[in-house]
Amino acid sequence: METLQKEATGAVDKILANYNSDNPGTRANLYRLLTSGRLAGTGKLVVLPVDQGFEHGPARSFAVNPAGYNPSYHAQLAIDAGCNAYAAPLGFIRAIAHDYAGRIPLILKVNNHDSLVSERDPIPAQTSSVDDALELGCAAIGFTIYPGSTEWRAMYEQLRELSEEARAAGLAVVVWSYPRGTNISKDGETGMDIVAYAAQIAAQMGAHIIKVKLPSDHLEQDAAKKVYQSTGVNISTLSDRVKHVVQSAFDGKRIVIFSGGGKKGDEAVFDEARAIRDGGGFGSIIGRNSFQRPHDEAVKFLHTIMDIYGGKKD
Amino acid sequence: METLQKEATGAVDKILANYNSDNPGTRANLYRLLTSGRLAGTGKLVVLPVDQGFEHGPARSFAVNPAGYNPSYHAQLAIDAGCNAYAAPLGFIRAIAHDYAGRIPLILKVNNHDSLVSERDPIPAQTSSVDDALELGCAAIGFTIYPGSTEWRAMYEQLRELSEEARAAGLAVVVWSYPRGTNISKDGETGMDIVAYAAQIAAQMGAHIIKVKLPSDHLEQDAAKKVYQSTGVNISTLSDRVKHVVQSAFDGKRIVIFSGGGKKGDEAVFDEARAIRDGGGFGSIIGRNSFQRPHDEAVKFLHTIMDIYGGKKD
Amino acid sequence: METLQKEATGAVDKILANYNSDNPGTRANLYRLLTSGRLAGTGKLVVLPVDQGFEHGPARSFAVNPAGYNPSYHAQLAIDAGCNAYAAPLGFIRAIAHDYAGRIPLILKVNNHDSLVSERDPIPAQTSSVDDALELGCAAIGFTIYPGSTEWRAMYEQLRELSEEARAAGLAVVVWSYPRGTNISKDGETGMDIVAYAAQIAAQMGAHIIKVKLPSDHLEQDAAKKVYQSTGVNISTLSDRVKHVVQSAFDGKRIVIFSGGGKKGDEAVFDEARAIRDGGGFGSIIGRNSFQRPHDEAVKFLHTIMDIYGGKKD
Amino acid sequence: METLQKEATGAVDKILANYNSDNPGTRANLYRLLTSGRLAGTGKLVVLPVDQGFEHGPARSFAVNPAGYNPSYHAQLAIDAGCNAYAAPLGFIRAIAHDYAGRIPLILKVNNHDSLVSERDPIPAQTSSVDDALELGCAAIGFTIYPGSTEWRAMYEQLRELSEEARAAGLAVVVWSYPRGTNISKDGETGMDIVAYAAQIAAQMGAHIIKVKLPSDHLEQDAAKKVYQSTGVNISTLSDRVKHVVQSAFDGKRIVIFSGGGKKGDEAVFDEARAIRDGGGFGSIIGRNSFQRPHDEAVKFLHTIMDIYGGKKD
Amino acid sequence: METLQKEATGAVDKILANYNSDNPGTRANLYRLLTSGRLAGTGKLVVLPVDQGFEHGPARSFAVNPAGYNPSYHAQLAIDAGCNAYAAPLGFIRAIAHDYAGRIPLILKVNNHDSLVSERDPIPAQTSSVDDALELGCAAIGFTIYPGSTEWRAMYEQLRELSEEARAAGLAVVVWSYPRGTNISKDGETGMDIVAYAAQIAAQMGAHIIKVKLPSDHLEQDAAKKVYQSTGVNISTLSDRVKHVVQSAFDGKRIVIFSGGGKKGDEAVFDEARAIRDGGGFGSIIGRNSFQRPHDEAVKFLHTIMDIYGGKKD
Repeated sequence: METLQKEATGAVDKILANYNSDNPGTRANLYRLLTSGRLAGTGKLVVLPVDQGFEHGPARSFAVNPAGYNPSYHAQLAIDAGCNAYAAPLGFIRAIAHDYAGRIPLILKVNNHDSLVSERDPIPAQTSSVDDALELGCAAIGFTIYPGSTEWRAMYEQLRELSEEARAAGLAVVVWSYPRGTNISKDGETGMDIVAYAAQIAAQMGAHIIKVKLPSDHLEQDAAKKVYQSTGVNISTLSDRVKHVVQSAFDGKRIVIFSGGGKKGDEAVFDEARAIRDGGGFGSIIGRNSFQRPHDEAVKFLHTIMDIYGGKKD
Repeated sequence: METLQKEATGAVDKILANYNSDNPGTRANLYRLLTSGRLAGTGKLVVLPVDQGFEHGPARSFAVNPAGYNPSYHAQLAIDAGCNAYAAPLGFIRAIAHDYAGRIPLILKVNNHDSLVSERDPIPAQTSSVDDALELGCAAIGFTIYPGSTEWRAMYEQLRELSEEARAAGLAVVVWSYPRGTNISKDGETGMDIVAYAAQIAAQMGAHIIKVKLPSDHLEQDAAKKVYQSTGVNISTLSDRVKHVVQSAFDGKRIVIFSGGGKKGDEAVFDEARAIRDGGGFGSIIGRNSFQRPHDEAVKFLHTIMDIYGGKKD
Repeated sequence: METLQKEATGAVDKILANYNSDNPGTRANLYRLLTSGRLAGTGKLVVLPVDQGFEHGPARSFAVNPAGYNPSYHAQLAIDAGCNAYAAPLGFIRAIAHDYAGRIPLILKVNNHDSLVSERDPIPAQTSSVDDALELGCAAIGFTIYPGSTEWRAMYEQLRELSEEARAAGLAVVVWSYPRGTNISKDGETGMDIVAYAAQIAAQMGAHIIKVKLPSDHLEQDAAKKVYQSTGVNISTLSDRVKHVVQSAFDGKRIVIFSGGGKKGDEAVFDEARAIRDGGGFGSIIGRNSFQRPHDEAVKFLHTIMDIYGGKKD
Repeated sequence: METLQKEATGAVDKILANYNSDNPGTRANLYRLLTSGRLAGTGKLVVLPVDQGFEHGPARSFAVNPAGYNPSYHAQLAIDAGCNAYAAPLGFIRAIAHDYAGRIPLILKVNNHDSLVSERDPIPAQTSSVDDALELGCAAIGFTIYPGSTEWRAMYEQLRELSEEARAAGLAVVVWSYPRGTNISKDGETGMDIVAYAAQIAAQMGAHIIKVKLPSDHLEQDAAKKVYQSTGVNISTLSDRVKHVVQSAFDGKRIVIFSGGGKKGDEAVFDEARAIRDGGGFGSIIGRNSFQRPHDEAVKFLHTIMDIYGGKKD
Repeated sequence: METLQKEATGAVDKILANYNSDNPGTRANLYRLLTSGRLAGTGKLVVLPVDQGFEHGPARSFAVNPAGYNPSYHAQLAIDAGCNAYAAPLGFIRAIAHDYAGRIPLILKVNNHDSLVSERDPIPAQTSSVDDALELGCAAIGFTIYPGSTEWRAMYEQLRELSEEARAAGLAVVVWSYPRGTNISKDGETGMDIVAYAAQIAAQMGAHIIKVKLPSDHLEQDAAKKVYQSTGVNISTLSDRVKHVVQSAFDGKRIVIFSGGGKKGDEAVFDEARAIRDGGGFGSIIGRNSFQRPHDEAVKFLHTIMDIYGGKKD
């Protein structure tokens, strides 16, 4: 036992200590997520998420690199690039779970929204369950909330139920916390105060891993703006802002990773990774920037990001 | 075991391999569907669906060929024509399940919408259950979703629950995926991007068999249109479009069949079947074009279609 | 066993054969309904329903014949007149179930609507359950749906759940199918196409016995009208229309009975019974025309109707 | 057994015979209600209800006699005055159940509405459960419905579920049936036709004891008015109207008690009790007129009412 | 046993006697709350609540004293200051439950509302459960209701269910009762009649501990105003008003504590504590005034308040 404990790196041990109220099952799955892939043991994560087929449609997601229509492509890409985990909706996970059993931690994205209906105040549909995640050998469930949507309550309560069930089954819970809706301006969705608040809400709801967008220096809410200014919270650089988000997620006691957003220049992504690293963020979740380029380019691109986070060199 | 395996044709084995995360019960029912009727072992399916009595009313469905008022007529027609399966709502299935037990795979259509209420954003009522399907010896449940309807979420979540229950009971799940509602134009309902998206959604929801309409070359959504054009997706002929739909259903790893729509000229239907075959589609689901003509004509008509798909000659 | 089977008349045997997918419990209760009272063994039914106290209020229902305020009056009337069954809401059934246990088949009406609220698109409240029906020794549950109401889905789904439960418990399911709501004109409620559709829906939902109104020759829906005219469905006399309704309920494979409606002249009711008989209908359900006249007159009146259907003479 | 049976007075035996479909548990609790207090064995009831703290607020209920802020006060008052039962919401019952266990039948009022929200079409909140009633040793649950409210269906269905549960647990069900809402005028709330209808609905829903308001001679609904006039229902005096309400509750086969309403002159209350007695009503439920006066006055006042109903003299 | 009983102070025994209908588990947890910290045994409570991170956002809550971003800070502060209990949402409690197990009674706040959505008639989301509270070793659950909100019914019914579950599991139930919504003016939220009513409602719903705001002498509702004036309820000083609130919570038989509200001058808080003490209130629940100042100042500030309530001196 003691030996095993020692094999874990210090970074992972330190993080797991923040989850000491969780049961051994959930802690074991967090351990798996933190000790898989090129970043194993570093306390950092790079996750490959592929829910865009559901969220944006197949052609918008895969036509540029048609290999991606095939669900096996993504599981293999995640392994080839050394990601910590692969996240996708039920269909994509079912299509690969048998063949890839045990080869990479899987995160079952249990709610989704498609683009055929446009909703100012969105709420996703639950598309799979904790039982699905268990049957398919997943390490975690993923769930999106849209704080600020008038439908906030239904989402939070669905998350509450699924989280309780997941924790009881020894799974980890990953929350995509994306503020949106009539109460929030377009700029506000990535505003500093709003992103920090989104991280806090996910943490208070009991999320083990929190996924938010990278924040701008926009301040959305007047009551918050006043406090940021009077107390002098430093939000001038991206790494300062990452630091404040991490602080807002229980002073660094919850794993916060940042999403890449739409396709952009490689250097821009690398700069973001450096800012996340410098601000104490735990890593990135990178979808379209990975699977929308050819396989070998994607692997190289992801390796560069992992190197920034301190991953093992080949 | 090995012997049995060999008896299955290569085409069926190849398809079943795409469902290897499913339990033996569900795989056995998919096997039954693929090895029944004139197309047994070819990997192709022609299914007879008769839910029009519920959906459009009895006279509009059966007055032209009054033998169809009798539920036994359809089960017998499906057998006489060598269909892979017969699909209908609870009442029609209950009326024949005792007499036809084991003679043809049955698909219980577990939700339905009638034409007494006109809804711009429709959602069917659940009219039967997985327990009904089991009690009546069915191989699968059938479920309609209307992506694009403002009621999308309720349908997806009902499908999720029923699918989980069906899979656990060893049944297959057939999803009728018909985009419709205020968010979609009339042309859009069969638009290329929309039909492909409908197939993707059904696949991501975990459907084993997906039923969509044959797509036109209309492109409905601006964001999709841009991608179709920039990446040069080939959608010029019907078989090209079928191919793209099959690609959108996990690169051919999910069975996609196409519905015939309203009554039309025989040659038009045969041409459609050829396009489905040439595009790699898995077959047809043909209702009104079958049961709204005299029995012997219908059998001959269906045999011609099956011949196109490579079925056994008498 | 064989002997018992022989005691059943041919007419009942023939009807029961149409319910051969049902379990022995439900078939036994259908048998009880078909072999009770003066019409026992004829394959015809006359049922006494008394839910008007709930639906219209006590004075409107019983003031004209105040003996009817007493729940025992109706159970006794049904027995004295030789009805096949007595149908009523929970309170009325509870009030007589102990004393009349076993003496006449009881149908528990499990949903009701009162007249204190006026709704253009009505939906009744569930007022009792399958467990109530079992506890009280009933042979069947009765349930009203209003096809065409914007609330159609909720009613159909409630019916689905209760039917599944009832069938599993060996009870029969009687569906009152009364089209109504913003989608249907006043004339349409008894229009030929609408009543036939209502019968089809109830049959597809799995009803064992279907209660509809007598249809007029009005055709409500354009799409249906076109078909009635092009295919020459004969709907000129009342018995032709009854015949078409019976055809629409699985070509005569489901028991369809017709409601009498408000109080009217005796000869009119008798003419209706003759038309039902001539059209192949299975009988009548007669409430206000029975219990709103003195006991002995009501018995005589019901006997006349039963004689029309071929019942035993005293 | 036979001996015990004989100890019951004829009046109670006669009433219990009307509940012979109920299980021994529920019949035992009805027996307790009918054989407790000064009116024990007379077949009459006077019940003390104290839900006004919840319904109207504490000061409006208790400031005039501040002893009433204390929950023990009311249980003791009910015992001191010889009431058949004490009815109150969860908090008040929990506060005295331990100390008063077994000393007086308790009715747990399981739904309540406060006055902080004004609703034209009201529906109370469920505030306690059948399990609470059992845990606290209650003889019955009490439930308010507002027939005529657009929310009628939700209330009826909640009542249905709770009643089934209560009956199965051997509890009695007391229904407060108070028509109200956009469909009913202020005068209509106590109109003769409406109150009679309210009693009928409660009886049809399966209530064991029905509480309604004393009716005026107002007739609210045109369809009912016509019948009252054509059939000559006698509603001229209060006792005539009580008689018609009792008739409307299954011809006297269900216990109907009448509420006193707001504080009024003593003689007015006594006159009402005499009318209830003369019309065959089963008693009164008297709240504010009891606990809003000093204890000894209240006891004397309630004794006078009980004397009118034929209670034991001290 | 007897010895243990004696160790309990008279004040605690007297309070526990008011909860004698509760099971030993719940009474043990109330005992724990009353015998922890500096006020142990006095019958008074000072509770530290930290849900502002969820309710107002992280920066608005913690930027002024950034140590508060760390969840451990608050548990330690509560212990250092000698509070009776620490109350927080799921995330904050999970983050400290392992390390602080047994060291201080925990109250799990099971519903929360964030500030990203502005609702005129608010209703919080349920964010954790009774099972969470048990798993984390909590002594009680906390639940907020907003009487006067149009969503009142949903909140009361959620509270009812959770309370029943909590009581059955031996937990205590703390209700935050904060009138709010379209039916109540801004002044009305702390109006005398409204706060007293809020306390009554919480008590009637079965709350063990009630948290309300300190009332002003504003009277909101006309019907109440009339009674306050006619019966001469004394509400002139703050301690008079506290006294009336305590009276409205079952004449002092339910524990009522008062919230401090936003940050204000120390002397103002101390004056409020004196008024609470003089009016017979059971204590305070103080959040922002505690954790938004440096640790040692906060401890000193809380000690001063506890001294006012008669706590042990160091």
